[in-house]
Amino acid sequence: MSTETILITGSAGFLGSLVSISSASDDAGHPIRLLLTDVAEPNAPPNSQAKTLKVDLTDPGQIRQLFETAFGVPDTIYCMHGIMSRGAEDNFDLGLKINVDSVVSLLQAAREYGTRASKVIKFVFTSSLAVYGGPLPKIVTPSTIAIPQSAYGMEKLTCELYINEFTRRGFVDGRICRLPTIVVRPGPPAAATSSFLSAIIREPLSGQRATCPIGNSRDSPELNLAVWLASPATTIQNLVLIRTIPAHKFLPHTRVVCLPGFTVTIRDMLDALERIAGSQTLEMIDFKDDETNRRIVLSWPATFDSEYAMGLGLKLDLDGMDRVILDFMAMTKKQ
Amino acid sequence: MSTETILITGSAGFLGSLVSISSASDDAGHPIRLLLTDVAEPNAPPNSQAKTLKVDLTDPGQIRQLFETAFGVPDTIYCMHGIMSRGAEDNFDLGLKINVDSVVSLLQAAREYGTRASKVIKFVFTSSLAVYGGPLPKIVTPSTIAIPQSAYGMEKLTCELYINEFTRRGFVDGRICRLPTIVVRPGPPAAATSSFLSAIIREPLSGQRATCPIGNSRDSPELNLAVWLASPATTIQNLVLIRTIPAHKFLPHTRVVCLPGFTVTIRDMLDALERIAGSQTLEMIDFKDDETNRRIVLSWPATFDSEYAMGLGLKLDLDGMDRVILDFMAMTKKQ
Repeated sequence: MSTETILITGSAGFLGSLVSISSASDDAGHPIRLLLTDVAEPNAPPNSQAKTLKVDLTDPGQIRQLFETAFGVPDTIYCMHGIMSRGAEDNFDLGLKINVDSVVSLLQAAREYGTRASKVIKFVFTSSLAVYGGPLPKIVTPSTIAIPQSAYGMEKLTCELYINEFTRRGFVDGRICRLPTIVVRPGPPAAATSSFLSAIIREPLSGQRATCPIGNSRDSPELNLAVWLASPATTIQNLVLIRTIPAHKFLPHTRVVCLPGFTVTIRDMLDALERIAGSQTLEMIDFKDDETNRRIVLSWPATFDSEYAMGLGLKLDLDGMDRVILDFMAMTKKQ
Repeated sequence: MSTETILITGSAGFLGSLVSISSASDDAGHPIRLLLTDVAEPNAPPNSQAKTLKVDLTDPGQIRQLFETAFGVPDTIYCMHGIMSRGAEDNFDLGLKINVDSVVSLLQAAREYGTRASKVIKFVFTSSLAVYGGPLPKIVTPSTIAIPQSAYGMEKLTCELYINEFTRRGFVDGRICRLPTIVVRPGPPAAATSSFLSAIIREPLSGQRATCPIGNSRDSPELNLAVWLASPATTIQNLVLIRTIPAHKFLPHTRVVCLPGFTVTIRDMLDALERIAGSQTLEMIDFKDDETNRRIVLSWPATFDSEYAMGLGLKLDLDGMDRVILDFMAMTKKQ
């Protein structure tokens, strides 16, 4: 019987709910105790040993509740709450409050309750490639400088600094995952600049029109713009795996890990969709070049050296865009 | 008649008081209005147009007083207060409060009062080479990643992220100076790992014994350890200059500037002292290798590419250690 307790913030969100489901039991099938929290009360995965709590993490007093349940002090925290990129850009002060201040409060609580319970809590944090900006090398490595050009990127990087320092001092055992763009996200479009990357696959497959803001036609040279992607399944697998990696395997001076991904151009994505779903599906896409959107996407790094992440045992989408689309179709059919 | 107002925090400190003196008038000799603040009431430079205020910057309410004096909303803020490196390492929570939280509060106040007065306040910040850590290239450039390995370094880098983002959004006009180690500092030893670099020059020159924590004798190979230094005079000159650089001259994606310095080994420093003050002066130094101190100093970058900083018009100590020692002797004689 596992006595492990995992706290997941933002667990009503897309990735948060998938991590909740995947963390509901250990390798041997024993249930893991889940503390699931969000601004709205999240759902517990079926057959799970879960407590769900509606908590406002911008209030340090409410954060303390998470450490005082009958499940005791959690062994691992998945810190996955936050406002998305476009939301943080548009609501600057709210972004700082939710994407930085509440994470620092959570870290301080993890330090305090961890010390009291004589354990070093694992602190898994979802960061983003939005931390990068300015001139970048062709391939991003663990020694590439991150100079954010957005509120979201700056907020994620600030949290990374706190988590690294709290880890260095032994207050928590941090694991920072910089995520690729996740494709295909189900559901309605999210408040993220990257949300069209899911929409141009998801909408046509369900017979709905979608707008591609890169290029003005299927032949447009702008479609050669490359992006760095990972599937939801592989990302969740990696987020679950990273909790189990022994601390000494990480680099000694940082807990930042860029999760593995793969590079495709927008044209590659459309070609894959055509191969799988036929050319009539492609006709559901309107092309309307949005220079601002293109500029932002172009500022993101499109290729990373994943050697370090793979050396830690993290996984890669092996079959590129075709497999991502097929998996998405299988998942939506199942629901 | 200048109507410029400059606010200087930490102005009772060593660099803060020197910047206050150098900022008391403009190039034409007209007085500049100074708002000088520190935890203890600072001194005003002689013949200056200055208001001195004792303010606790950890209290956002007290910060507002600085923007509501008869001098009006300041045009430039020199944010120079803080706990030194060793102090921040030993008093972690106080370090976060003073070295991060109070800077963010000051930035928010600068944004608010600047907006109200329809001006973008220049925000000059003194950062440090302590932001660097982990494996480093032989020569640090503007694209070298900073991975702090100390509370102080992490705190400085966090403030840099805020200042860059506040600048990107047009809330303030940030200028971030990463300082080399400043040698020779006058006065009693400071709570910094680097303080011995001043003490091994300053103490022997005044006939007092000093301890060099690198190497066990004058012939020790450990003395070949290299450090990155700048004189107080050149540093102050650069801190004054950086306020006058037009905003468009900075890199578009970051306001971080590593101030120019020069590389010397500990042995070079002692050789210079011997040349200038004679071998009997060297006998005032006891060697007692402190492995921890040596490890920390060794983790700092010792050589930077100053091309960008020099291109901005910033100044370099041209005559190395000998000139630094002679200038220090001249300064102490004058007092």
